[in-house]
Amino acid sequence: MTPAEARARFRDGLVTPTAGWCPGWAQANLLALPRDLAYDFLLFAQRNPKPCPVLDVLDAGAVSGPLLDGDIRTDLPAYRVYVDGEQVEETTDVTSWWREDLVSFLIGCSFTFEAALVEAGVPVRHVEEGVNVPMYRTSRRCRPAGAISGPLVVSMRPVPAEQVADAVTVTARYPAVHGAPVHIGDPSALGIDDLDKPDYGDAVEVRAGEVPVFWGCGVTPQAAVVESRPSLAIAHAPGHMLVTDARDSDYLL
Amino acid sequence: MTPAEARARFRDGLVTPTAGWCPGWAQANLLALPRDLAYDFLLFAQRNPKPCPVLDVLDAGAVSGPLLDGDIRTDLPAYRVYVDGEQVEETTDVTSWWREDLVSFLIGCSFTFEAALVEAGVPVRHVEEGVNVPMYRTSRRCRPAGAISGPLVVSMRPVPAEQVADAVTVTARYPAVHGAPVHIGDPSALGIDDLDKPDYGDAVEVRAGEVPVFWGCGVTPQAAVVESRPSLAIAHAPGHMLVTDARDSDYLL
Repeated sequence: MTPAEARARFRDGLVTPTAGWCPGWAQANLLALPRDLAYDFLLFAQRNPKPCPVLDVLDAGAVSGPLLDGDIRTDLPAYRVYVDGEQVEETTDVTSWWREDLVSFLIGCSFTFEAALVEAGVPVRHVEEGVNVPMYRTSRRCRPAGAISGPLVVSMRPVPAEQVADAVTVTARYPAVHGAPVHIGDPSALGIDDLDKPDYGDAVEVRAGEVPVFWGCGVTPQAAVVESRPSLAIAHAPGHMLVTDARDSDYLL
Repeated sequence: MTPAEARARFRDGLVTPTAGWCPGWAQANLLALPRDLAYDFLLFAQRNPKPCPVLDVLDAGAVSGPLLDGDIRTDLPAYRVYVDGEQVEETTDVTSWWREDLVSFLIGCSFTFEAALVEAGVPVRHVEEGVNVPMYRTSRRCRPAGAISGPLVVSMRPVPAEQVADAVTVTARYPAVHGAPVHIGDPSALGIDDLDKPDYGDAVEVRAGEVPVFWGCGVTPQAAVVESRPSLAIAHAPGHMLVTDARDSDYLL
């Protein structure tokens, strides 16, 4: 199935997590914000490229662009709408919320490097277990920009000790989709008390001989929205990403 | 000499190209623009990362930041001031031009990857010849953003055919300082009629068996200023860069 065909099915009402859809095509996080916050957010992303790698930015009011020949308001399977930093709706169509001053940021998604990890023989536990990746709000702050601030959110994948270096080198080749880990081992240094209690997603088994490896996570922008309270923000629902017209290999360094 | 010591000498009035100063420390292009154009320029840079790799952005009105403990208005050896896209002054101190709404963009400089090329045994002709790198306005357009548009400007280094692949892999490791070449061989495809007549900098010898290799160039933002005509823009004078407190190795992927 092509990305355009997948988006057409979501536009027609199919609601499903997009993991595994259109292998080889990059998926993206969405965050749409009012134009008067766009500079602050773009600068926030520039200052925090590991959690917030920007793939593209649509012009204010635009609903399509080089990464999607379609309609950003309908072509994701599910959205979350935030008003003043509070989630007010989860919906499959945000046309009724749309404003001409909304700027859509498309942010890299770790699905791209997970495919590369699997190819390199590095196990990806949450995929094996068929659950969502575990994600944690850390005690580390992102570098703020204007009105936008928030904590670093990380995803965690347990990696056998002898493959941690492979996990680093493989993901480092994809800086546009979070790149190399931000932290390896020692969850407490990130303020994570219990790996079994993620703040988002699902817990996964960490086996003997495995090291928890932490990557910057695309939920970081939504955590910044909650803290920074813009008048309106529209994001993808977790796991329900934009399937783009860019190939994973476009982001291989 | 530390970067802080070098900046102090420039602040005290020394005017000199910065090539070769403070080996191992990264140098940066400067472009300061009014806040109302900052979003368009940051988006322009995001859309054209090879010619415009942003290392950092100072807050509006700020004259120092993580990359320089000093004063951006005085700590470069020379500046160019543009009003409505026309150069009106070349000066060693822009304090009298400063406005509280100016946002300073610090953009990666190829000096960083040139050191890596030399270390890898790839000749860098303009350094050997003791001249400025040859730069060309191409017929290729940058992807525009709002009010900012302009041509892609490239720098050219002739590389022996058997070392072109080395030149690619070495520079690709430094995406924050222009990264891999944008074009290899065939100047006419970029609209360059005569390599001996660069638009900026100096011509260099291209020897038999050498291929012209083209990289995105930090003069691209100044070409965009000339075309886009902001009310005020302050840039470094060519070759007279900001010597930053970041190490070249900070930008090694």
